[in-house]
Amino acid sequence: MGADHARKLSRVVSGATVTAVADFDPRVAATVADEVGATALEDGVAVIDHPAVDAVVVATRDDTHADLVRAAIRARKPVLCEKPLAPTAAECRELVGECASAGPSDLVTLGFMRRFDPSYVALRDRIREGDCGAPLLAHCVSRTVQSYPGGDSAATITNSAVHELDVMPWLLDSPIVEVSWQHGRSAAHVADRQDPQLYLLRTESGVLITSELFLNARYGYDIRCEVVMETGVCALTQPTHIVSDSHRTRSVDYAADWIPRFSDAYRLELQEWIDSLRLGRPSTLAGVTDGLRAAVVADALIASMNSGGAWVAVPD
Amino acid sequence: MGADHARKLSRVVSGATVTAVADFDPRVAATVADEVGATALEDGVAVIDHPAVDAVVVATRDDTHADLVRAAIRARKPVLCEKPLAPTAAECRELVGECASAGPSDLVTLGFMRRFDPSYVALRDRIREGDCGAPLLAHCVSRTVQSYPGGDSAATITNSAVHELDVMPWLLDSPIVEVSWQHGRSAAHVADRQDPQLYLLRTESGVLITSELFLNARYGYDIRCEVVMETGVCALTQPTHIVSDSHRTRSVDYAADWIPRFSDAYRLELQEWIDSLRLGRPSTLAGVTDGLRAAVVADALIASMNSGGAWVAVPD
Amino acid sequence: MGADHARKLSRVVSGATVTAVADFDPRVAATVADEVGATALEDGVAVIDHPAVDAVVVATRDDTHADLVRAAIRARKPVLCEKPLAPTAAECRELVGECASAGPSDLVTLGFMRRFDPSYVALRDRIREGDCGAPLLAHCVSRTVQSYPGGDSAATITNSAVHELDVMPWLLDSPIVEVSWQHGRSAAHVADRQDPQLYLLRTESGVLITSELFLNARYGYDIRCEVVMETGVCALTQPTHIVSDSHRTRSVDYAADWIPRFSDAYRLELQEWIDSLRLGRPSTLAGVTDGLRAAVVADALIASMNSGGAWVAVPD
Amino acid sequence: MGADHARKLSRVVSGATVTAVADFDPRVAATVADEVGATALEDGVAVIDHPAVDAVVVATRDDTHADLVRAAIRARKPVLCEKPLAPTAAECRELVGECASAGPSDLVTLGFMRRFDPSYVALRDRIREGDCGAPLLAHCVSRTVQSYPGGDSAATITNSAVHELDVMPWLLDSPIVEVSWQHGRSAAHVADRQDPQLYLLRTESGVLITSELFLNARYGYDIRCEVVMETGVCALTQPTHIVSDSHRTRSVDYAADWIPRFSDAYRLELQEWIDSLRLGRPSTLAGVTDGLRAAVVADALIASMNSGGAWVAVPD
Repeated sequence: MGADHARKLSRVVSGATVTAVADFDPRVAATVADEVGATALEDGVAVIDHPAVDAVVVATRDDTHADLVRAAIRARKPVLCEKPLAPTAAECRELVGECASAGPSDLVTLGFMRRFDPSYVALRDRIREGDCGAPLLAHCVSRTVQSYPGGDSAATITNSAVHELDVMPWLLDSPIVEVSWQHGRSAAHVADRQDPQLYLLRTESGVLITSELFLNARYGYDIRCEVVMETGVCALTQPTHIVSDSHRTRSVDYAADWIPRFSDAYRLELQEWIDSLRLGRPSTLAGVTDGLRAAVVADALIASMNSGGAWVAVPD
Repeated sequence: MGADHARKLSRVVSGATVTAVADFDPRVAATVADEVGATALEDGVAVIDHPAVDAVVVATRDDTHADLVRAAIRARKPVLCEKPLAPTAAECRELVGECASAGPSDLVTLGFMRRFDPSYVALRDRIREGDCGAPLLAHCVSRTVQSYPGGDSAATITNSAVHELDVMPWLLDSPIVEVSWQHGRSAAHVADRQDPQLYLLRTESGVLITSELFLNARYGYDIRCEVVMETGVCALTQPTHIVSDSHRTRSVDYAADWIPRFSDAYRLELQEWIDSLRLGRPSTLAGVTDGLRAAVVADALIASMNSGGAWVAVPD
Repeated sequence: MGADHARKLSRVVSGATVTAVADFDPRVAATVADEVGATALEDGVAVIDHPAVDAVVVATRDDTHADLVRAAIRARKPVLCEKPLAPTAAECRELVGECASAGPSDLVTLGFMRRFDPSYVALRDRIREGDCGAPLLAHCVSRTVQSYPGGDSAATITNSAVHELDVMPWLLDSPIVEVSWQHGRSAAHVADRQDPQLYLLRTESGVLITSELFLNARYGYDIRCEVVMETGVCALTQPTHIVSDSHRTRSVDYAADWIPRFSDAYRLELQEWIDSLRLGRPSTLAGVTDGLRAAVVADALIASMNSGGAWVAVPD
Repeated sequence: MGADHARKLSRVVSGATVTAVADFDPRVAATVADEVGATALEDGVAVIDHPAVDAVVVATRDDTHADLVRAAIRARKPVLCEKPLAPTAAECRELVGECASAGPSDLVTLGFMRRFDPSYVALRDRIREGDCGAPLLAHCVSRTVQSYPGGDSAATITNSAVHELDVMPWLLDSPIVEVSWQHGRSAAHVADRQDPQLYLLRTESGVLITSELFLNARYGYDIRCEVVMETGVCALTQPTHIVSDSHRTRSVDYAADWIPRFSDAYRLELQEWIDSLRLGRPSTLAGVTDGLRAAVVADALIASMNSGGAWVAVPD
């Protein structure tokens, strides 16, 4: 992930130069540094403190995000931190407090890249045009080929579902205020968690969202979102470039993971971040309060899961 | 509906002759009789008792179904009754008892035509092939242009949702054992009921079904069903014949109502019914116990609605 | 083909009874007769002359069509003859003359079933609505899995392309007046003919049609037709019932041959024929002059092929 | 077009700075210069000769391309020239000669952006994989909303069809060696040219290409390409982000012109050009011999048009 960001900043983003990189594994850091013409440093703090570094991207292990963000805040350097801001809502809340007291509220931005995906953007524009009236329902699907080892049912929520928890309020322009965790039959090939899971989310504006997360769906990486409005419906289309006819089928390919699916979204997010820094204007990236809110909603979902699926109100 | 059945039996079903028809409005009966070369009689009982009539289709007002079915049972004539068998589960149960004591269990069949829709049949076949493992989740959508006047939120369940309540257990080969009623924001143009509604249904096999019913969706008649299996997904496609490019869009048409969407299903259902009668073999149509079961599940959904969305077990 | 017609007439067409059947192979005749409750006779003429037979379907080998049609004309019995009427335009022309002198012009109808395919019908209706102005171009594609053994490049035209040669003038409401035969690279796995072939056809109204015929396309049975009008385009859609997600692809199935693709068209054609006979009204099936015209256009295409692709005018 | 290139180079291409711009209309130059932080100069030659300019993009009127390219060659500065290199094949040939004698053959590159469109690239990759055997046929469609005023039938070929004339040999890896110009009925609303036109193109490898150009198709900007291989077919898909259900249709939008359709292609082309310049390596852009070849094929098509559609061999 970090290597991908370094490559994008170096190769397809206008106005950015990658000066220094660090990685837990120094060989990786050296390779990436070589690729993008940067210096490999011993750790993230060294990168942050490097005098030639004006801004920092944090794409390390989840449990290191908070400390690196703190270091960047201390150094008064803008930081783009991959989600999550911190593993728990409590830690996020603490960090939001530190940000607030540190000064400009937009020093820290969060990598919720779906906000930059052209399909989500077009869907949001269509909803805002209002030709079909108000949104009433939304149906989301997130399926991936395989989950990372070592997780559990709660990790599905905090690591994966968190994207829907951020993007749906942004899309529908209303926060999620109530959640309920449901489950279907679990796939026999999945041992470590309930998979798939189904979430019911209700926004302040009253929209009911169904959100399916199926991490071991095997067939492909598949992100769907459909919004039902009063007199019409609008949905993301599956991105495809070509269609093939062979072996008695007409088919289009699925991506194996998020990299091709959201490649453009990552590029556009990084470009917007760099542009905002160069022009000294606020960016449209997600901020720390968005990261906190997603974490709080995730916590409510976990509470619902632990209580057998009851509706749980999301605290402010 | 009755006129459409009469026309199909007369014109596109092999082996059937429409001999006598009746309608609440005698002028309608006369017109249809003239069209199909039948005799118009004064009421349904007269049709049932007519000596030249071998079998009867009941497509009258819902509250008249039970009595006409009783008359047919008494006359020992096979009857195809449009759903619902009776307005309440209690009345259905009574009728099932009468059928059981009357003799051959398949004298009465029910018009759940989706079982004959080529798309549902292909979907069921694909699931049964088992190449993608067991079904885990299913997502259903039923949207229509406009609801009939005079209904309420419960009527959405008993009149419209009942199709999903019959077809999904048939499709997944497992009865629905638990239900929960949920709601999104209601469309501003609908005054008489919650619309759309969302149902959660769980089968005995553990499959979780989400089922959206939106009767005043305005844009078109749209029936969807997607089944998520362990390693793949299969869904109905929207039936279309042509695609048009004009006015900056590529588009396919939606039907305005169920008639074109399920025309083939009705024809195939009637053909199967006639074939079974002519060959003296059991048909694959839904029977009275299927009708009873759908009514019992509908009652459980209404109970869930009245209790604020709690999961309600469906009694055996 | 004949067996399929017998089954359809017996099972899914209203108002028809299959009374007698014959086949070159008496065992086939016996089997089919048994299936549909008919009598197996020794040959086609015996069927035609059988007193209980009111009308005849001819679906025998191409070179036997003309004689059987003659026998039906002599017997004054309506006959539905599978295309082609006769192997050559000259023989067709002779037969048309015999029909004309025999009496009612619609005694003989021809099995150009695409005229009854719901997609072609919807496309024709859309063109006739005229919302997109006049047709200017049309693009046709006919691909099949495998050609029958024993044919040559000319057989592709007379046996297969003939469907386009009939349906396109019907669709565009204007006869084909000029043709040109073109070829792409031929598939390495095809030894007996040029495959694919490409035809340019021009209607009297000036529409230029490109028509690709690829008999050994392997991947599936695929019939396409797109009509380009002045301000919009309309095309057949591929008929599908379900869509599958598995193995990194989203896919819909192709039929292996014409039977599922045109099953509905055959049924509707037979129903229209039976209806017209029962009601004593003209049918909308193709007639002998249509069959003659298609044969004449096919001859012109063969002439173009033999002259290296030059435009050839179609004689009246 | 020039303004769009300046914006892309300045905002979404890594490694480029726009230093100086010029335009026929000095106010346009001033506005664009202001937007991208460049200096507005009096004309293209001044830009080329400006000491801070390392490389030049020419996107001026077609008849000025050759002189500006010559100036860039003289200044030994790399130039990316929008197609066409020059209005006639003769002038192109002359320029190719000048390039050859000027030194490094890749000083001049040509803006045939389709080679960078992700769909064309994916189609080419699929063909090269060879799973479906050799290409046999290809079907291209280029439809736009409206033609520029002042053109004629030949201008359709030299200005618009030229994209297919470049991209198809690149896609199929074989030059076009023979062409034939055909026409359908012309749209009544088009007065200045035959529209639509149909081209037949044959590659050295034997592939027959049908290419429809319809500039006043009104309904939208629509670029299609389908390649028929021995055992399968592959085609570009229409790029879409969302699908809408409303007013009895399911629809996706067409672009009004090439800007959104090929925005990514232009960005990727510019990025590749900048990368090649910075790294001192050859680029994958089209070069002057490609531009010459496309012009020579266009001339052959015009010759075919003037001779009534005969096949014309393309000179080497």
